[in-house]
Amino acid sequence: MTNYRLILEYDGTDFEGWQSQSGDRRTVQGCLADAVERITGERVQPNGSGRTDSGVHAEGQVANVKLAASLAPAELQRALNAVLPLDLVVRALDAVPENFDARRDALSKRYRYRIWNGPWRSPHRARTHLFVPRRLDFDAMQRAAQALVGTHDFASFQASGSSVKTSVRTVTRLQGKGAPGGEIVFDVEGSGFLRHMVRNIVGTLLEVGQGQRTSGSVEALLAARDRRQAGITAPPMGLCLMRVDYAVEAAADTETRPHSA
Amino acid sequence: MTNYRLILEYDGTDFEGWQSQSGDRRTVQGCLADAVERITGERVQPNGSGRTDSGVHAEGQVANVKLAASLAPAELQRALNAVLPLDLVVRALDAVPENFDARRDALSKRYRYRIWNGPWRSPHRARTHLFVPRRLDFDAMQRAAQALVGTHDFASFQASGSSVKTSVRTVTRLQGKGAPGGEIVFDVEGSGFLRHMVRNIVGTLLEVGQGQRTSGSVEALLAARDRRQAGITAPPMGLCLMRVDYAVEAAADTETRPHSA
Repeated sequence: MTNYRLILEYDGTDFEGWQSQSGDRRTVQGCLADAVERITGERVQPNGSGRTDSGVHAEGQVANVKLAASLAPAELQRALNAVLPLDLVVRALDAVPENFDARRDALSKRYRYRIWNGPWRSPHRARTHLFVPRRLDFDAMQRAAQALVGTHDFASFQASGSSVKTSVRTVTRLQGKGAPGGEIVFDVEGSGFLRHMVRNIVGTLLEVGQGQRTSGSVEALLAARDRRQAGITAPPMGLCLMRVDYAVEAAADTETRPHSA
Repeated sequence: MTNYRLILEYDGTDFEGWQSQSGDRRTVQGCLADAVERITGERVQPNGSGRTDSGVHAEGQVANVKLAASLAPAELQRALNAVLPLDLVVRALDAVPENFDARRDALSKRYRYRIWNGPWRSPHRARTHLFVPRRLDFDAMQRAAQALVGTHDFASFQASGSSVKTSVRTVTRLQGKGAPGGEIVFDVEGSGFLRHMVRNIVGTLLEVGQGQRTSGSVEALLAARDRRQAGITAPPMGLCLMRVDYAVEAAADTETRPHSA
């Protein structure tokens, strides 16, 4: 068996998320499994670093697949890209040790959330940005963001109904860039995320930016450990999984760099 | 009658160009005329600064419409944007002198052509960039571009079969930005363009960048005045009309600035 690691880019608009589902739903995992089967004849379930929800994009999702076929990585990548649909591509592919597991071995992930704060909706940004017409108080959002950096119990920011062992997570970076009235992005980096955590953080920051809660209220919100007190879940189209980091660097990982927006 | 000037953004992917056509074809001009009729009851043909071809985008197309209805510009803009399809928006709208003509009075236009020069197609850039996998010689392209700046007979770069009085045009700027292996854009600015001229220029630069012609050959190409000697017409999805300038500035034109990519 050869264990292959893949770095994936996809436009999430027309996918019902990462995870294969029963029925006819179009998922990233399912499309990738179909392509692998078409090339190698083997039916395997690609193991992703984590699920992305319906409509969420990726520029650097990572997955691994174990195959009996022993193809040169460059050959396998070329063959997969020739049959994958246009909204999904393998940006890099390499052979990794047999015990490499894209989910379990992920050390950190970086997400980007894109907001279009112009006065009118923007056709060019409709698939990638959340449109917020009201002028945002970017400085207040930045202050609120800083209160979330560090190791905290993020129970207030996890999807309701979640049942994980612990909701303590470490956010190593949460930083906004851009300008009110134009494009604003928030980069969120951490060792692991609860379900909907990034979108719930952004939803809360958006309430701060629109004056519906103060930047100083975020500490109390963390302490409350109550999902009902945080902001709405920001819509999926603004979210993109930018990269996943591992102790062992992907051989072709430099390819991901000129790509970041 | 009130003469309104509109600044338009559209994702050209699903339009068959600017100009209304007979039959069921979906055009920018037709969608805009439908929206104006729905709001005012008046059927008028919006007068664009120029046609954009099928698949070509705009971030700053300009048009004017003369209406009997006298609506406040902000009110008309809001009403139009509420009924326009999601791939077309009015970014700015103001009342202008009755003799203003978006086509005739245009002093200069700026286009951007976007190229994705990464090793693999990019789902996020599929609608906006031409994918060129072969590593481009960007410096050679820049040198060739400089030979085209100025007032020249661009007969070699106009669509075959064109019958304009003169093919002499002035290109005031033709500049590449970016890096081989990543995103590359060419900004082209001039007082007027022949049909397909920007796409034929880019097609020729791409041949230079791929070593199929030398950067020094462009002067001879201009002198030849022969469409058959220039490069292919670059595909439409990479092209975007960024702005049109007039002697009278649009009142709301500052809105177009934070928008440029």
